[in-house]
Amino acid sequence: MTRIYNFSSGPAVLPEPVLRRAQEAIWDLDGTGIGVLEHSHRGKAFMAVLERTEARLRALAGIPDTYAVLFLQGGASTQFFQVPMNFLGAGGTADYCHTGVWSKKAMAEARRFGAVHVACSSEADQFRHIPAEEETAWSSAPVYAHFTSNNTIYGTQWRSEPAVPAGVPLVCDASSDIFSRPIDVTKYAMIYAGAQKNLGPSGVTIVIIRKDFLETGSRDLPTMLQYRTHAGEQSMFNTPPTFAIYVIGEVAAWIAAEGGLAAMDERNRAKAALLYDYLDQSKLVRGTVRPDSRSLMNVVFRCVDESFEPELVARATARGLDGLKGHRTVGGMRASLYNAFPIEGVRALVDFLRELEAARA
Amino acid sequence: MTRIYNFSSGPAVLPEPVLRRAQEAIWDLDGTGIGVLEHSHRGKAFMAVLERTEARLRALAGIPDTYAVLFLQGGASTQFFQVPMNFLGAGGTADYCHTGVWSKKAMAEARRFGAVHVACSSEADQFRHIPAEEETAWSSAPVYAHFTSNNTIYGTQWRSEPAVPAGVPLVCDASSDIFSRPIDVTKYAMIYAGAQKNLGPSGVTIVIIRKDFLETGSRDLPTMLQYRTHAGEQSMFNTPPTFAIYVIGEVAAWIAAEGGLAAMDERNRAKAALLYDYLDQSKLVRGTVRPDSRSLMNVVFRCVDESFEPELVARATARGLDGLKGHRTVGGMRASLYNAFPIEGVRALVDFLRELEAARA
Repeated sequence: MTRIYNFSSGPAVLPEPVLRRAQEAIWDLDGTGIGVLEHSHRGKAFMAVLERTEARLRALAGIPDTYAVLFLQGGASTQFFQVPMNFLGAGGTADYCHTGVWSKKAMAEARRFGAVHVACSSEADQFRHIPAEEETAWSSAPVYAHFTSNNTIYGTQWRSEPAVPAGVPLVCDASSDIFSRPIDVTKYAMIYAGAQKNLGPSGVTIVIIRKDFLETGSRDLPTMLQYRTHAGEQSMFNTPPTFAIYVIGEVAAWIAAEGGLAAMDERNRAKAALLYDYLDQSKLVRGTVRPDSRSLMNVVFRCVDESFEPELVARATARGLDGLKGHRTVGGMRASLYNAFPIEGVRALVDFLRELEAARA
Repeated sequence: MTRIYNFSSGPAVLPEPVLRRAQEAIWDLDGTGIGVLEHSHRGKAFMAVLERTEARLRALAGIPDTYAVLFLQGGASTQFFQVPMNFLGAGGTADYCHTGVWSKKAMAEARRFGAVHVACSSEADQFRHIPAEEETAWSSAPVYAHFTSNNTIYGTQWRSEPAVPAGVPLVCDASSDIFSRPIDVTKYAMIYAGAQKNLGPSGVTIVIIRKDFLETGSRDLPTMLQYRTHAGEQSMFNTPPTFAIYVIGEVAAWIAAEGGLAAMDERNRAKAALLYDYLDQSKLVRGTVRPDSRSLMNVVFRCVDESFEPELVARATARGLDGLKGHRTVGGMRASLYNAFPIEGVRALVDFLRELEAARA
């Protein structure tokens, strides 16, 4: 079967060697005579998978022992309420950086539990940039500060962490750029991410959380909603999503073999540059994001003649360039170029756009 | 690779034709050129998977349109709190049938939200039977009545639903026997089940819920914790666990091809009878559950000489009979015989036990 270029924003393309290994593991995991979907989560074979997956993630990002690495369920949408439910009580204030649809959803859930202060927002320019430090005003004593490191829908990405006041726990929704570049975990109290963009299939949420921070969470919550429950049981309080964890482990091994997070960053920069450079001089299409805020993960662009967009997307699909239609809230096109997306696919897209441009010139 | 007999209590054995199809789909789903792990959940290919999966489940169990079929995350452990959080307010009482570890956990979470009345309990005889109607006393006006249809740890199973008073919504944790036999869904307000025993991999929870019942749930809850959120969006409010849903769809097609739930029931009865009949006359091993309450899914047994149990389990493992060690809370052995477990495996286990018995006689 011929595989095609998959520009989907998530679930998204995975490394082909990982897919090949997953195919084998579904029939027989590590020579056990039982497939990965069928192994007891409490058996030796899966425990080995869990341990190696966590160890690989820790090694890739240099995650210290003072942090727990959890494999939860429910996606970032669950973290949107679980974070404030644990850490934002009545009378408290949490600060949020508002950079698009996902931060809006996160704030809406947080307001159920306490006060939300919008520390900065790019809503006034339709989320086309990441707010600078001088646009940002923190509240006097936030219980935490929250930001979305990459915005899949608008195609913006923080270059570095927002400069929160000393002592304020920084919480990050890193769903769409986790492990796409080196990260200094010690700057964060907590990082959470649905795995289905850079790290694996949908159905598992990675939570990297400082142990002393998680212990400050409310105890007056259902057992499953307290982070300490999962930290205390190595994500095995209840049956975890075993296959998704297996795939993350294989993706992590692939990232390491390819050179680690620094290599991913270099590769992701090269891929995005190919496409942005073309957009910057094209008469057919144009990028929508301010250059200093452009995402390396999701390149959002429009046709100069917007009425041509449906045809462009249809022709791309016919050429084996799939998933380019933009999110319904912003229209246009979006090329998602996560870790596993090959540079050949970006070249194929640029070639295709060049041909189209020439034909219409 | 030789596959072995997997008696695991869950995640558990899946039908081999389903594993073969999953292997293909991981590389290329339905000829799309993109694997099932990589497809956007909002694309046509996955939407077709979701729709056919739901349609197959509805057809198998005769689920009427007045019920929603949801694919959620977090397992039964999440339902333990989500059910009372939605339906049990302060001042209300929910009735629970207490038949083991899982009902105990469910009750502990429910007590956070309102009063719990234990309508019946088999705790006094170490959960070796399912309470009869005459052992059961319902409260005057419960907001719902909850039972665990099969108890994986103690090896008991309800023969039919508890006889709740007319008008009381019946809620069932069917994690370990869902779709193992025909079911009259209309007797229930809600059925929930982790998929990882009879229906698929871990990481997805099936919720079958009457639409008028779900609408009575609290609105003062995080969006993700309201059943109406997921019912209104066909389980697509956020990214669902796409691969687990795909596998459930394939398992459902396999069940249908094998003759449906009636055929599963017949087969499950035949498998369990083979083992229970042997236990009833063995001098080596004995069943632990009262005959009228025996589970067809999880056959729990002990050695007459309990000190021999570790050796029995080790020898079984060496013979390719894996996962027989009982749950740590009850010890002994447990053979889980879910839908996909082949009768040849039960014969192999009985032959093995007969040989052992003869050798020790």
